[in-house]
Amino acid sequence: MFKGINASDGYGIGVAQVAVAPDLSFTPRVPENAEEEKARYAAALDKFVAQTNAQIERMKKTVGEDAAEIMGAHIEFAEDDGIKDMVNGSIDSGMCAEQAVSEAYDTYYTMFSQMEDELFRERAADVADVKTGLLADLLGKEVVDLSTLPENSIVVVHELTPSMTADIDKENVAGIVTETGGRTSHSAIIARALEIPAVLSVADATKNIKTGDMVVVDGTNGKVIANPDDHDLEHYRAKAKVYAEEKQALEAYRGKETVTGDGEKKLLVANIGNPDDANNAAEHDAEGIGLFRSEFLFMDAKELPSEDEQFAAYQKVALRMKDQPVIIRTLDVGGDKEIPYLNLQKEDNPFMGFRAIRYCLNNPEQYKVQLTALLRASAFGDIKIMLPLVTNLDEVRQAKQLIEECKADLDARGVEYNKDIQVGTMIETPAASLIADDLAAECDFFSIGTNDLIGYTMCADRGNDRVAYLYQVYQPAVLRSLKRIISEGNKAGIMVGMCGEAAADPLLIPVLLSFGLEEFSVSAPSILRTRRIISQWTKEEADALTEKVMALKTATEVKAMLQAAVK
Amino acid sequence: MFKGINASDGYGIGVAQVAVAPDLSFTPRVPENAEEEKARYAAALDKFVAQTNAQIERMKKTVGEDAAEIMGAHIEFAEDDGIKDMVNGSIDSGMCAEQAVSEAYDTYYTMFSQMEDELFRERAADVADVKTGLLADLLGKEVVDLSTLPENSIVVVHELTPSMTADIDKENVAGIVTETGGRTSHSAIIARALEIPAVLSVADATKNIKTGDMVVVDGTNGKVIANPDDHDLEHYRAKAKVYAEEKQALEAYRGKETVTGDGEKKLLVANIGNPDDANNAAEHDAEGIGLFRSEFLFMDAKELPSEDEQFAAYQKVALRMKDQPVIIRTLDVGGDKEIPYLNLQKEDNPFMGFRAIRYCLNNPEQYKVQLTALLRASAFGDIKIMLPLVTNLDEVRQAKQLIEECKADLDARGVEYNKDIQVGTMIETPAASLIADDLAAECDFFSIGTNDLIGYTMCADRGNDRVAYLYQVYQPAVLRSLKRIISEGNKAGIMVGMCGEAAADPLLIPVLLSFGLEEFSVSAPSILRTRRIISQWTKEEADALTEKVMALKTATEVKAMLQAAVK
Repeated sequence: MFKGINASDGYGIGVAQVAVAPDLSFTPRVPENAEEEKARYAAALDKFVAQTNAQIERMKKTVGEDAAEIMGAHIEFAEDDGIKDMVNGSIDSGMCAEQAVSEAYDTYYTMFSQMEDELFRERAADVADVKTGLLADLLGKEVVDLSTLPENSIVVVHELTPSMTADIDKENVAGIVTETGGRTSHSAIIARALEIPAVLSVADATKNIKTGDMVVVDGTNGKVIANPDDHDLEHYRAKAKVYAEEKQALEAYRGKETVTGDGEKKLLVANIGNPDDANNAAEHDAEGIGLFRSEFLFMDAKELPSEDEQFAAYQKVALRMKDQPVIIRTLDVGGDKEIPYLNLQKEDNPFMGFRAIRYCLNNPEQYKVQLTALLRASAFGDIKIMLPLVTNLDEVRQAKQLIEECKADLDARGVEYNKDIQVGTMIETPAASLIADDLAAECDFFSIGTNDLIGYTMCADRGNDRVAYLYQVYQPAVLRSLKRIISEGNKAGIMVGMCGEAAADPLLIPVLLSFGLEEFSVSAPSILRTRRIISQWTKEEADALTEKVMALKTATEVKAMLQAAVK
Repeated sequence: MFKGINASDGYGIGVAQVAVAPDLSFTPRVPENAEEEKARYAAALDKFVAQTNAQIERMKKTVGEDAAEIMGAHIEFAEDDGIKDMVNGSIDSGMCAEQAVSEAYDTYYTMFSQMEDELFRERAADVADVKTGLLADLLGKEVVDLSTLPENSIVVVHELTPSMTADIDKENVAGIVTETGGRTSHSAIIARALEIPAVLSVADATKNIKTGDMVVVDGTNGKVIANPDDHDLEHYRAKAKVYAEEKQALEAYRGKETVTGDGEKKLLVANIGNPDDANNAAEHDAEGIGLFRSEFLFMDAKELPSEDEQFAAYQKVALRMKDQPVIIRTLDVGGDKEIPYLNLQKEDNPFMGFRAIRYCLNNPEQYKVQLTALLRASAFGDIKIMLPLVTNLDEVRQAKQLIEECKADLDARGVEYNKDIQVGTMIETPAASLIADDLAAECDFFSIGTNDLIGYTMCADRGNDRVAYLYQVYQPAVLRSLKRIISEGNKAGIMVGMCGEAAADPLLIPVLLSFGLEEFSVSAPSILRTRRIISQWTKEEADALTEKVMALKTATEVKAMLQAAVK
C-alpha cells in the first residue's frame, strides 16, 4: 500500500500501465551551419504547436473548454519570444539545437520551480513538457502516448505532463498514479474534470509498480494498493460500487431547492476562481456564486487589469448566473498569493502582513478601478462586493467611502449600476469574530472564510503537516468563534454565509444549521452532496446534536461525536 | 534633525566627538617565514585578550557584572580554535598574518551577519570588533579610545563596538549616536546599563555631524538634533530636567507595595531572559519574576542543556528571588527563535508552525528534562511552570501528565521538589482566549502574552512596519479578548497576570485594573514607573474610563480617550 495526495475522488481498479519517459539524452555537438540548426528548431516548434492545437481541440470534447485552456500555456511557452531569442542566440554562439533548447528551457524550469507561489511553481511542469516535446522531435523519439491504452488501465507515470493528460481517454483509464504534483497541479485539475480517480506524489511509484500489476487507486483517501489480495479487492469493489451509486443518487437532488429536513430554505452556492468557472458552477446546479476570488484576474495578467477588462470578467459571471447572487471578493493579494508586477515587499510573515484589504486601502486609486468595475457589472446581475481580511471597522468604513466615490464618478459619467449594491465582509480573522456585532451593524452580509479563520485562531498554517492536528474546524475554540459570528450576524438581521471548505463538511453541516447559517458556498462538485446533507437534518435534531457537541472540551471528542451522528 | 532607533532613554545635550575608525588597510605580502607570522599573530592575540580582560574588570565597576559578560564574547571569538586553525592554516599556505586574520574574521562575520535570528546577527559586531583589535595591533595602529573624552561629550561613531563601549566613562559621555545597530545590540544593552541616552542607526551621522557641533540626543524618541537653535535647546533642556526629576520622583516608589489608588494590592514582577537578569530585576525592585524566557538557555548552547545545567539556571533565579514567585516559561522554540542543533524544519509560516509547546509535546523525553529540572529547582523557591502557545485543552493535559511522570521519577530518585508546584498557561493565541473558561478550570494561573496575542488576533506581524497601524493593543478586538481572558480567569479564581509589553503601557493600565488584572510583569526599568501609575487609579475611576473606552469602535478613538485620561 502506497500513500499519496488525493487529487481526484473515486475508486479505480485495473491493470497498471507504467509509462516510462523516452530517453532524451544526447551528446552536444558544434553544428557547421547555425542557420540549419535554427531551421531545425523552427520546424520542431511548428510541429509542436500544431500537435498541441490538435490536442486542445480533442480536449475541448473530452474535458471541456476550461480544462483545454490549460494547454494554452504550452503554446505560450513554445512561442515565447524571450525563450526563442535565447535558443537562437545559443545556436548563433555555436550550440546545436538540442543543447540550445535544453538549456533555455532548463533555465525557465529552474526559475519557475523556485518561485514561492505554488501556482507559479506548477508552471514548471508546463515548461518541462514543452522541452520534452521539442527535444523528442529534434531527436526523432516518440513521447509517451496514452491515447491507445486498453480498457481499465491504471496509468502510472513519474510526472503526468499536461500533454499526456490531454491524450488520456476517459473510457479506458480507470485511475492515475504519479510520483509528483499537488492538488492544484494541472494534472489534478484535469483528472478531476475527467472524473478519473487520481493519487499524486506517490514516491517511487514507477519502480514499485510494474506494468501488468493489478492496482487499486483510492483517489478519495490518497491510497494506492498494488496486487491487492482478494479481501482488499472485494472491499474496494464494494466501495467503488457505493461511490458510483451515491453519485447516481445525488442526481435526485439536481434542480431541487435546498431545504432542511423541516423545510427551511437555505442558499447553496459555489466558490469560483475565474469567470469560466461560473459555467461549471451552473452545470453543478449552484444557486449562485458565494465567492468569486478576483485575484486570479490579476495573477494571470502581466499588468494591472484595466477597468474594462475587470468589468468584462465580472459582467460575464453576472450574466451567466442571471438573477442569482454573485459575491465577488475584492483583490486578496499577498499571503501565499504573489502578483509580481505589484512589486510587493518580501515579508517575513506574509500571512500576517501587508495583504488583501490592507494593500487595497493603501492603494485607493488602484482599488477604485476594481470597485468601479464591480459597480458597472452590478447593472447586469445581482453582484455583491465582499471585503477580505477585515480586522476592524475602519477598514469597512474606508472601503464603503471609496465605493461612494466610485458611485459618484459613475453618476458623473452617466453609467448605470445597482445603487443598492450590497457590501459585506469576509469573516476570516479572530479580530473580525471578536467585533462581529460592530461589523454586522455596518455590513450587508457576512461570509465566513473558515480556511483562514481556523489558521489564525489556532495559529496553525494550513499547509504545514506538522500542525495539521491543530488545524481543525472541530477545535472547540473554532466552533465557539463560528457560533459567535453567525449569532451576531443573525441578531443584526444580515445574511451569514460560509465560503470556507468547512461549508461542505458533512460532519459540520448539522452544527452550522443549528448555529443558523443561511448560505453554504462550496466547490461545484460538492453542491448536490451538500444539498442532500442539508435535507437530512431538522432544526430540532441539529440543535440537540450541537448542544452536546458544544459541551465537549477537545477536537477529538467533537469529531467522534459528529462522526457517530452523521447520516 | 536626524531620526534613528531609540536604544536608551533620556535626553543628552553636549559637544560632538566624532570618532573615526583607524585606517586598517594593508597590502598583502608573502612572508618569508610562516613561523614568524604565526608568532606575530599569537602575540597580537595575547595582547588582545589581556586588554579585553582589563576592559571587563573596568566594566564590572562601571556597568555591572552582567553587562561586562558581553565582552566575554570577544575572548571567545579571539580564542576560538576553529578561527585560530583557519588563520594559522592560511599563514602556512603563504599568507601574511594581516591577510589571514582579515579573511578568517570576514568569513565568520559574513556567516553571523546572514543568520536569520537577530541575536545571532548581532554577534557579527563582536567578530568585527575582534578583527579590528587584532589588525590594529598587527599594523601598529591605535583603535578609537573613548576613555579620555572631555565632559558632556556626545559620542558619534559608525558602529559602537562592544570594546569602545567598554571604554566609555559615564561621567563624561552625555549621549551616543551611531550609524548601525538595533535595540537588542550589545551597544544598546550597555548604553541602557550605563543610562546614557542613545540613538542608533542614524544614517550618515559621522558625515553630517562634525566634532565640536552642539548636539541633542533624544534617546526616548530616537531623534538627534545637530546645532540646535536656542528654542530647541531650551525645549530639550526642559525635557532633560523633567526626565531627571521624574526619574528621581520614581525613587519614592522604591521598596513600597504595589497598590491601586484605593489600596488594592497588585503584584508587580519582571520579565527576564537569563538567570543573571534576576539581579537586575531585584535591583529594580521587582516583586518576583513574571516571565523567565527559558529559551535563552538553549540558544546560547551548542547542544541541549542537560538536566543539571538547566537546574542550576532555574535554581539560581529561585535563590536570588527568595520566596518571591518565579514563573518560568518552558521552551518556546520556533517562530522567530531558531536553535540550530534542534534541526527544526524550515517552515513557510514559522509563526503558525511547529513551535513552542507543539515541539515540546512531540519530543516528550526532551521536554521531561526541562520539566524535571524545573521541579528540582522548585525546592529552592516559588517556581511556577508556564506553558507557551497553548491553543487547546489537550496540550495542558498532556503537559500536566508529563509533569506527573517527572514527579514520579523524582520520587523514585528521592529528590525533593514542590509537590504543589503551580502549572499555568500563557494566553497568547486567539484560541486560548476563546476557551479561557475551559483552560482556567485546569490551570493554576494565566499570564497574558499580549505581544503574540495582538499579532495573531489582528493577523499582523509585530515586526512589519506596514501593518503597525493594526498591531495595536487599543484595537477593540484586542481589548475584548483581554477582557474575556481576565474575566474568565477571575471567575475561576486563578491568578491572571500579563507579561506582554502592554502590561507597562501607561495608557492601558487603568483598563487592565478595571478588567481585574492581578499581576503586571514588565521589563525591570519599567517597574517603578508602573508602580506609580497603578497607584494613581482607583477601581471606580478605572471602571468609569473603561466603560467609555469599551463602547468605542476604533483604535484611534480608544487611544485618544486613554491619552486624554492618562494622569
